[in-house]
Amino acid sequence: MRIGVLTGGGDCPGLNAVIRAVVRKGVGTYGHEFVGFRDGWKGPLENKTMPLTVKEVRGILPRGGTILRSSRTNPFKIEGGVERIKANLAELGVDALVAIGGEDTLGVATKLTDLGVNVVGVPKTIDNDLNATDLTFGFDTAVNIAMEAIDRLHTTAESHHRAVVVEVMGRHAGWIALHAGLAGGANVILLPERRFDLADVIAHVQKRFEIDYSPIIVIAEGAMPADGDMVTVTGELDSFGHVRLGGIGNWLAQQIVQQTGKEARAVVLGHIQRGGTPSAFDRVLATRFGLAAIDAVNDRDFGKMVALRGTEIIRVPLIEATKELKTVPAHRFAEAEAFFD
Amino acid sequence: MRIGVLTGGGDCPGLNAVIRAVVRKGVGTYGHEFVGFRDGWKGPLENKTMPLTVKEVRGILPRGGTILRSSRTNPFKIEGGVERIKANLAELGVDALVAIGGEDTLGVATKLTDLGVNVVGVPKTIDNDLNATDLTFGFDTAVNIAMEAIDRLHTTAESHHRAVVVEVMGRHAGWIALHAGLAGGANVILLPERRFDLADVIAHVQKRFEIDYSPIIVIAEGAMPADGDMVTVTGELDSFGHVRLGGIGNWLAQQIVQQTGKEARAVVLGHIQRGGTPSAFDRVLATRFGLAAIDAVNDRDFGKMVALRGTEIIRVPLIEATKELKTVPAHRFAEAEAFFD
Amino acid sequence: MRIGVLTGGGDCPGLNAVIRAVVRKGVGTYGHEFVGFRDGWKGPLENKTMPLTVKEVRGILPRGGTILRSSRTNPFKIEGGVERIKANLAELGVDALVAIGGEDTLGVATKLTDLGVNVVGVPKTIDNDLNATDLTFGFDTAVNIAMEAIDRLHTTAESHHRAVVVEVMGRHAGWIALHAGLAGGANVILLPERRFDLADVIAHVQKRFEIDYSPIIVIAEGAMPADGDMVTVTGELDSFGHVRLGGIGNWLAQQIVQQTGKEARAVVLGHIQRGGTPSAFDRVLATRFGLAAIDAVNDRDFGKMVALRGTEIIRVPLIEATKELKTVPAHRFAEAEAFFD
Amino acid sequence: MRIGVLTGGGDCPGLNAVIRAVVRKGVGTYGHEFVGFRDGWKGPLENKTMPLTVKEVRGILPRGGTILRSSRTNPFKIEGGVERIKANLAELGVDALVAIGGEDTLGVATKLTDLGVNVVGVPKTIDNDLNATDLTFGFDTAVNIAMEAIDRLHTTAESHHRAVVVEVMGRHAGWIALHAGLAGGANVILLPERRFDLADVIAHVQKRFEIDYSPIIVIAEGAMPADGDMVTVTGELDSFGHVRLGGIGNWLAQQIVQQTGKEARAVVLGHIQRGGTPSAFDRVLATRFGLAAIDAVNDRDFGKMVALRGTEIIRVPLIEATKELKTVPAHRFAEAEAFFD
Repeated sequence: MRIGVLTGGGDCPGLNAVIRAVVRKGVGTYGHEFVGFRDGWKGPLENKTMPLTVKEVRGILPRGGTILRSSRTNPFKIEGGVERIKANLAELGVDALVAIGGEDTLGVATKLTDLGVNVVGVPKTIDNDLNATDLTFGFDTAVNIAMEAIDRLHTTAESHHRAVVVEVMGRHAGWIALHAGLAGGANVILLPERRFDLADVIAHVQKRFEIDYSPIIVIAEGAMPADGDMVTVTGELDSFGHVRLGGIGNWLAQQIVQQTGKEARAVVLGHIQRGGTPSAFDRVLATRFGLAAIDAVNDRDFGKMVALRGTEIIRVPLIEATKELKTVPAHRFAEAEAFFD
Repeated sequence: MRIGVLTGGGDCPGLNAVIRAVVRKGVGTYGHEFVGFRDGWKGPLENKTMPLTVKEVRGILPRGGTILRSSRTNPFKIEGGVERIKANLAELGVDALVAIGGEDTLGVATKLTDLGVNVVGVPKTIDNDLNATDLTFGFDTAVNIAMEAIDRLHTTAESHHRAVVVEVMGRHAGWIALHAGLAGGANVILLPERRFDLADVIAHVQKRFEIDYSPIIVIAEGAMPADGDMVTVTGELDSFGHVRLGGIGNWLAQQIVQQTGKEARAVVLGHIQRGGTPSAFDRVLATRFGLAAIDAVNDRDFGKMVALRGTEIIRVPLIEATKELKTVPAHRFAEAEAFFD
Repeated sequence: MRIGVLTGGGDCPGLNAVIRAVVRKGVGTYGHEFVGFRDGWKGPLENKTMPLTVKEVRGILPRGGTILRSSRTNPFKIEGGVERIKANLAELGVDALVAIGGEDTLGVATKLTDLGVNVVGVPKTIDNDLNATDLTFGFDTAVNIAMEAIDRLHTTAESHHRAVVVEVMGRHAGWIALHAGLAGGANVILLPERRFDLADVIAHVQKRFEIDYSPIIVIAEGAMPADGDMVTVTGELDSFGHVRLGGIGNWLAQQIVQQTGKEARAVVLGHIQRGGTPSAFDRVLATRFGLAAIDAVNDRDFGKMVALRGTEIIRVPLIEATKELKTVPAHRFAEAEAFFD
Repeated sequence: MRIGVLTGGGDCPGLNAVIRAVVRKGVGTYGHEFVGFRDGWKGPLENKTMPLTVKEVRGILPRGGTILRSSRTNPFKIEGGVERIKANLAELGVDALVAIGGEDTLGVATKLTDLGVNVVGVPKTIDNDLNATDLTFGFDTAVNIAMEAIDRLHTTAESHHRAVVVEVMGRHAGWIALHAGLAGGANVILLPERRFDLADVIAHVQKRFEIDYSPIIVIAEGAMPADGDMVTVTGELDSFGHVRLGGIGNWLAQQIVQQTGKEARAVVLGHIQRGGTPSAFDRVLATRFGLAAIDAVNDRDFGKMVALRGTEIIRVPLIEATKELKTVPAHRFAEAEAFFD
């Protein structure tokens, strides 16, 4: 069997662990051959391939990023894109695809399945906002990086009687903010799932200063105040994509200064949250996802994606990947509130 | 309500996070008062107490160990022990206990429950070998520490064409070896759950050297060769407890030298696996366990312990804690075997 | 002898190690007594004190920040400030001061010495820009944090064919940028010491993309392009101090996008560089500074500060602390240029 | 110019950084060509070579170990060894060698220089025991790893009222023990440079327990008690090299148990101290050494090795590398004694 592998969407610690597991078990146990497609769906679309044998996957387990590179190319938005993919796969003798990616990448995989392409999906979202699986790889690494930053910021905040606002990833779901905030001992955590009351945040900040401690506020990049909207808040949305020069973190720090008269600083963690070596949890989960994906391919159980349920890896229909966003439920947010000073 | 808290058995990253969560929510949400019992069951037995207010638990979230200290004291093995505990609790006006510990500590808790003491348990085992919960805190930290050591040992092994045997914790269950080995890219993983065939291990080692790589073998301290038994293997069991001077790791390294003529080194990770700051996963899980425990106390739902099931924290009967050891099942070990060179 | 200790200016990993060493050796070897002054010079000015015995300094070695807290208060800018300090010291029976701080804090110390106050200084600058000492504590920790971030950003940059601009601390001297850039394998390093030619940077970026790698540019916050000045560059200088919403890093990323058509991201490391547990190097250097400072006090060798020269700690006149900024010399920058792609 | 590069002796974090700097500047600035010799002096002896262009050194800066591999082969101990090396170099057209290694490797380099081979040396000793240079790369990484282990062991020691003995590298010089002990807050530090009085150590241990803290003793593997010698102490010296099953650390832990009745544990850090990614300090120092070495080669200034003096890299005669061991002087040990409880 000849199998193509690709990674799409934003990079995420653990992608290389998935690729390695797919190839190692595919070659070693099943005798498969592999074609590496570069740059996500652009790979099969433009015939951008690279060799993918056991040799290429040696030593990549601890490495962040993806040796296959990635892109956000969507073949369904390109005239004749799907036909080109099918033609290229046929020409290369590729019988099945392992597609590793998030909502967009797996959305394409789902539609291709309907069009007769053999695909098995591996879910990837650093934000952990996918309903079909208990957890996704990359999330644990991101939370650890954010937690270590918060640990560091506590001491500098205390030394200067200063509020520190830490802006973490999470446009639509606040899982990173929730877990990093819980793990880092944040005094307030603000999520996209619930608009926050600025007066309430200011009150927490003041209370914290009163007991002679310095407040740490963890805020997801997608969090918003109750009155006012994102357009007003960010203002300086940049022309080149994600890096908002005056994001919600900076805005909140400014509000704290203005309303409390205390010093405040904002730290925007940005891309350091998604690069670098994966945590043990993510390496194990990604490896297990890879093993389960190649098993599914070998079983010719296409149109499925792998998922974590409890301690086991299961298969669910690919369509699950795009069905519903997993947001932070009220009872999980209530856990964090027990620590709001 | 006046509640006692104690930690028993071996220490584990996350104990302080549990204590903090219990006290923060107990005081802040329910208005409870707390008594800290020192040194596990020795605390209520000998009336060794310490103050346990919000002040004592500030800043302890990132700290390893336990501010309450620990011991392996078992009141049921001490003449009149149980009566003294009941008398001391009555005298201190302690209405309920939160007992944080492993099989032994929770075994005592279970028996005390039968004798009318109000206890809620929080499971703790760094080895993750407790059947009643999907995961326990401390395990993730231990696996990360072992993985980082393995990452380091790869480069020194390669540079010297040398086999490296890494002995990790795990007397009866090989979870740490399995996960650290998977995460660290071990070439062979040996667990207590299945006796290993030395000839087989040697064959893997030789095969790895043949492809010009250096083998890393991860072995649980409780793993044993198929022929021969522990007494023969260790020989020099020391007089003061755990530190076996010539443990299984050193024995295996010696066998590799003798049978392959190559260099080999053993590294025994030992106690660094259980100390120090907890990982984000463990801080979050321990915090959630603490919150759920104090909820159970407040509900007067005694004789229960908290547990992780999927992504939720549930309550199970305390008796579950001691019922059955969770060992590595065959299908999980098979995952690792896909990577044995 | 009764000695006051204070920490002034921005916090820095290692401050607690200095305090601990001063107190431990002062009490243990010399039998001194200590008064902790809080919030830098505000402490002796406003009689803000805290106990400072061996008990207070236990366990603080690995902790970032300063248990004495800090401020930028300058008594010479306050009417009658110096007189109040002298009166307060007299009243408290404080015979000598150990002042730990940077240019400003030690500038005050120098002037107070001239006015008859017994001071020994310990130099502190995370930027390492002090001519009188080979190295200062805190710098090594900051460089390690920045390097780890760069390590992480490499993989995310590669995966997305994307340029990443990393903005690090350094307003007037580029030591952190130079060392973090060298250690992190940056392709271009930009320092405040030499205005950069934007066309040149763009050329390096393009050359790097041509060989199918992604460029990482490390830039000090104080770096400036050859044409244009800081006001033009940042535009949105904020009203509350350091956090420039549109700093030089973001500006450069935007220029790269506009001139190369490639993606680019800026990451501003900010305050995570100065918080948290110190590296081994900084703990040892800070400890040795503290020991040497209390030796100087005990010798009544006032008006001096301690400094590292080669492998030894020496004493130099306090005035040295404010004499000249140590900037990156041409031959050190040339080292980095050997790696510019 | 055609230049050979080799790495000899035990591996050390930073070796790859040296190799990379030599090649990057050699190719980029001077237009040199390189031959990689594998396995130390065995490379030129047995014509074991590998390509060494800019391509091979990409991405190796953060990696531990050495891409050239290493060995302890000494051509002067092999009949006709030196002649074969000279013949092989001539045949390969290799005009000069960069030899990176410790006392043994550079000892060979020195003798070869006398026999007309063009060599420039780069000093490498993880133990930092080389008199000719202020510091060597690898040492800082080892100290950080040991310190992190000690940080972790503090919490587990405290939780169990237990003494912990940490055995670190250092057969003849105690630099790692001294710096890791200072950085980790050890209560006693024992070095090879001065035989220790067991009764004295026991007294410190007891005093520490009395103030309700747990003692951490850092001991170099080469430390010895005042009465008794190494043979008696270790007993079970193993047949396969370094790993002493019952080393001095285990012996000391046993003594503490027997003489105090308290629990004690020994942790032998072993090879994790020398593997893995280098610290920023070591990456920068190793890079600077590599740059300076290729400069020396280009200047045809052979028979020299590079060294750190203060903040500058200088050249010293190769013979310096083997002249004298740099041991811990009394005044440096006295620094640590200030913290012995």
